[in-house]
Amino acid sequence: MIRLLVLYGHPKDRKEFDRYYREVHLPIAKKIKGFKRWTIGKVQGTPDGKPSPYYLMADLFAESREAMEKILASPEGQAAVNDVPKFATGGVTFIYTEVEQLV
Amino acid sequence: MIRLLVLYGHPKDRKEFDRYYREVHLPIAKKIKGFKRWTIGKVQGTPDGKPSPYYLMADLFAESREAMEKILASPEGQAAVNDVPKFATGGVTFIYTEVEQLV
Repeated sequence: MIRLLVLYGHPKDRKEFDRYYREVHLPIAKKIKGFKRWTIGKVQGTPDGKPSPYYLMADLFAESREAMEKILASPEGQAAVNDVPKFATGGVTFIYTEVEQLV
Repeated sequence: MIRLLVLYGHPKDRKEFDRYYREVHLPIAKKIKGFKRWTIGKVQGTPDGKPSPYYLMADLFAESREAMEKILASPEGQAAVNDVPKFATGGVTFIYTEVEQLV
């Protein structure tokens, strides 16, 4: 299993980011087919109270990197990818990781 | 659901990090009870080929932040937490996020 982790930096306008993400980005992204698992979630903080470098994360899972690249290259995938710069005013980092499930 | 994301920076000695993580850290961490889900995984890269800021990640899930803090405060949790500085030569970032599962 492969996971594409999407790390959104702190946006310039949190309220507007939240609105756009829920009302515009998610409806676009929900048209994508093929994810094995997909979670989103706001950062709550850090165990020691240090500021988090990120504001929100999304975790996208697929069978393999090849499968993920196919999903993202689909018209629905491209629509979602191309929408990201429209609201990610705090920058965005995409990272592929292997996923080994222990529990 | 809450997720504690553990982001390990690039270690000074990758081979030694890998060895210690598998042979020492995981056996210590596996004694912890209470996670709802636990995955680990090496970074494979980024979609655009930029270097990843991280080398390896672990995702720990619990019912709530309170539940996670209880797990980490247990003797088994403390043993694992206290082991991290012994091998995380590239630094480590812990981030709590809410988890909303869409798929």
